Amino acid sequence: MSTVYTRPLARLIDRLQRLPGVGAKTAQRLALHLLKQPDEEVAALAQALLEAKQQVGHCTQCFHLSAEPVCEICLDPQRDSAVICVVTDSRDVIALEKTREYRGLYHVLGGVISPMEGIGPDQLTVQPLVRRVSQTMVKEVILAISPTLEGETTILYLGRLLQPFTHVTRIAFGLPVGGDLEYADELTLAKALEGRRPLD
Amino acid sequence: MSTVYTRPLARLIDRLQRLPGVGAKTAQRLALHLLKQPDEEVAALAQALLEAKQQVGHCTQCFHLSAEPVCEICLDPQRDSAVICVVTDSRDVIALEKTREYRGLYHVLGGVISPMEGIGPDQLTVQPLVRRVSQTMVKEVILAISPTLEGETTILYLGRLLQPFTHVTRIAFGLPVGGDLEYADELTLAKALEGRRPLD
Repeated sequence: MSTVYTRPLARLIDRLQRLPGVGAKTAQRLALHLLKQPDEEVAALAQALLEAKQQVGHCTQCFHLSAEPVCEICLDPQRDSAVICVVTDSRDVIALEKTREYRGLYHVLGGVISPMEGIGPDQLTVQPLVRRVSQTMVKEVILAISPTLEGETTILYLGRLLQPFTHVTRIAFGLPVGGDLEYADELTLAKALEGRRPLD
Repeated sequence: MSTVYTRPLARLIDRLQRLPGVGAKTAQRLALHLLKQPDEEVAALAQALLEAKQQVGHCTQCFHLSAEPVCEICLDPQRDSAVICVVTDSRDVIALEKTREYRGLYHVLGGVISPMEGIGPDQLTVQPLVRRVSQTMVKEVILAISPTLEGETTILYLGRLLQPFTHVTRIAFGLPVGGDLEYADELTLAKALEGRRPLD
């Protein structure tokens, strides 16, 4: 290491650079910015990091990120517990929650079935999902899983497992609202055609 | 705050969002990434933040960022202490050091003179610079200050103060190497014309 950065600054830049999307330039900019902030600001960021890491685990029912054993969504009496939306990741729950459209519960799989990467149903939260669906009154399971090769495999697999117990649907894929047909990728366009509906 | 993020996650996202260039989406992405990292990684980042903030101050001689009372550049016996390059910010020192071209010392002003923002010579490290130059054998002071309105004022001011003691120069501004004339801004182009030199 050269003398360009004083040691503790070099270590901070190195750590920041491990974050996704943060290159050498951004890491330097962030580090120099932080050095100019009041002590309390930097201490608060460090504490927020440690506390989030220590306190946030997974909901024991739906496996969404949660600081409590059961997450706020699962505990919310206003939500329709007869509908479960199955997603790959907690990020998807957050994205769906932001739409404020969905009022059912979730189930976070933790990934998709991928024999290539050695991920089978046992590496995902498939067993707890089947238990939930078979033991409680679930009217509908919505599979909100991206239609990649692995996604389709997962959808097929879950469909077979869950259809004996409940009505299983999958979300629509197609042209994004405001999207230009000309600029859509082929897969999206194919899905949009495949999912066409008769005019009301 | 909605139930979209569990409390400690919301706090972390809020803290990350205060960083420059980090919006809501990036903050969420960084936070979710960090939650998936091992405890040690997150603890190391938190510690690097606190240590950098606690340990990094300013060199008492040149005011560059330093974890020691006098920085590594000032202490380096290989460097030419008879040349001082005056810059606005520690970032400029880092940028110049990366070129590996300059072997003299530095002086970090901490800003430029700006009556509009209430920044006069007393808010900058002008006094210590004059002391350095008047009390030690300095052959040349290079002013590496951007030629903005405030920058030019600062250059003029420092020139008058320092010229009784030493030779004062300013760095060249002009077309960047590989830069296309057509795409250069007018100020840069004007500076490039102004700084023209006879062919050798």
